[in-house]
Amino acid sequence: MHSIQQYQDFFSTYLHSESEIKEPKNLYEPIQYILKLGGKRMRPVLTLLIAEIFNIDYKKALPAALAVEVFHNFSLIHDDIMDNAPLRRGQITVHEKWNTNTGILSGDAMLILAYQYFEQYEPIIFQELAKLFSKTALEVCEGQQYDVDFETREDVSIPEYLKMIEFKTAVLVAAAMKMGAIIAETSDDDRNLIYEFGLNLGLAFQLQDDYLDAFGDPKTFGKQVGGDIIENKKTYLFIKAIEYATIEEKQNLLQLFSVRLEDNLDKIDAVKEIFNTSGASKATQIAIKNFTSQAFETLEKINISQDKKEILKKFGKNLMNRNV
Amino acid sequence: MHSIQQYQDFFSTYLHSESEIKEPKNLYEPIQYILKLGGKRMRPVLTLLIAEIFNIDYKKALPAALAVEVFHNFSLIHDDIMDNAPLRRGQITVHEKWNTNTGILSGDAMLILAYQYFEQYEPIIFQELAKLFSKTALEVCEGQQYDVDFETREDVSIPEYLKMIEFKTAVLVAAAMKMGAIIAETSDDDRNLIYEFGLNLGLAFQLQDDYLDAFGDPKTFGKQVGGDIIENKKTYLFIKAIEYATIEEKQNLLQLFSVRLEDNLDKIDAVKEIFNTSGASKATQIAIKNFTSQAFETLEKINISQDKKEILKKFGKNLMNRNV
Repeated sequence: MHSIQQYQDFFSTYLHSESEIKEPKNLYEPIQYILKLGGKRMRPVLTLLIAEIFNIDYKKALPAALAVEVFHNFSLIHDDIMDNAPLRRGQITVHEKWNTNTGILSGDAMLILAYQYFEQYEPIIFQELAKLFSKTALEVCEGQQYDVDFETREDVSIPEYLKMIEFKTAVLVAAAMKMGAIIAETSDDDRNLIYEFGLNLGLAFQLQDDYLDAFGDPKTFGKQVGGDIIENKKTYLFIKAIEYATIEEKQNLLQLFSVRLEDNLDKIDAVKEIFNTSGASKATQIAIKNFTSQAFETLEKINISQDKKEILKKFGKNLMNRNV
Repeated sequence: MHSIQQYQDFFSTYLHSESEIKEPKNLYEPIQYILKLGGKRMRPVLTLLIAEIFNIDYKKALPAALAVEVFHNFSLIHDDIMDNAPLRRGQITVHEKWNTNTGILSGDAMLILAYQYFEQYEPIIFQELAKLFSKTALEVCEGQQYDVDFETREDVSIPEYLKMIEFKTAVLVAAAMKMGAIIAETSDDDRNLIYEFGLNLGLAFQLQDDYLDAFGDPKTFGKQVGGDIIENKKTYLFIKAIEYATIEEKQNLLQLFSVRLEDNLDKIDAVKEIFNTSGASKATQIAIKNFTSQAFETLEKINISQDKKEILKKFGKNLMNRNV
């Protein structure tokens, strides 16, 4: 086994060795651009880690890890077009640096390239990876559509919200892990359990992202604290607050979420106050804890040594403490 | 064997039986909308026809035929966004009926759905189909990028133009046919020959499309005659005209192609005159004839009965006479 840092380095070296700008340049340059913006490479690292957890060399999992990372970056390019986002990882987005048409077409090519990386596996493994990948990719599209739909809906429920973040975020984390298990040719039970582990950890991670967006430390969170509140985003915190709030608090919250302001400091403070007094903050923390516990319970059922379980548990804890 | 009309009907019935609007509706409704706009279904029909040419039941080829048609319609949605096109098959385009974001996301989902249709085949066939499909899909993206790049280039050569239409149009026709051969488990030679046949026929078809866009009969051509001239499109006719024209004709042509007019009748007549006097029309007709002959020569080498060759030859001739 290696450290997370080592897997990041292995992946980074592989990514660079696989990078070439082919013709037509206007199609392939934006692809190299976004892939080299960096990021924590969490998903591909998980594919490598799980492969070694199941006793095969991480090198065998590199093409699948690259497929996952290329797909993730495809979704970032198309999402950034849809969100009209100027920046990604602090750098100018593809559709801003080139144009929307380039963003669409280079994104399309990345989705196809992701499938091509699986061609390095023999037919049975190839089919299993491609099937899991297609199912996951379609769910990510569905999650994105739910997210768009929810912007104009006032009655989004907690189960609906959880399904949206499951599809938009958690399934790719789960699939990245399961791919490592598929390549290691584990039992069906083990690969389904590792998927469940990843899914619950992904849900906990996304809910924690919602929580930290309001209550995180600006020095360590990485994104603008209060960003979701400024954008009037209906996160877990908001939906729970609406559910738990008094009539007065609810009216206040809806009023605060009906405007976009120049100066948001007072708005952020007022919303956070309601998140706390209504019990929404507490409920979100409990949900995070429940999904994390669920992940760790699933882990216990997997047919691997206690040492390996400890490695995954430590990874999960570091992830939730944002130390990864 | 069945008639082309019968294959069209079989495909249409299958398409409708496989149609269901799943959740989220805003993702899946646009997909059903574009798939039901119709069209000649030439590509999926070719998959079914070739499967039976190689002695298997067309029914086995239906999922692959659907993959090809869904991919083709994905490319239409994304191309229509890029071209800002208001109409497709005489109906309002997806991005106009919904919006650009819906067009991007529903298109993405269709690309993934196309891969999922191959899951009905066993692993070895699945991998061969998916590999051919990925290679083809990537080439279609590259062809689209070349087409975009050529709009702002003044020095596009005939080989470059031919590569562009090969990638943008011909490879999908060729791949649709080869898929029928893969499913029929033919020899590698036969499936490569049928691909060559389709590629040359696809090139001939696209060049004829260029030719008919200027010289076709408005009653039967289906699109606006002169459309490429109005749009200043650098088709095979234009590139050949620039190559063959006298200095004076060339200056005239460049002048005519430097403007966009309200009334295009005089422009269309003047350009067609130069296409004729320069010898570009003749050269285009010769190129069409050469690619068609090349297709029919390739056909002779395929290991099928003379009857079957006649069926494919008749199909090719009908296609070139636009009777299909």
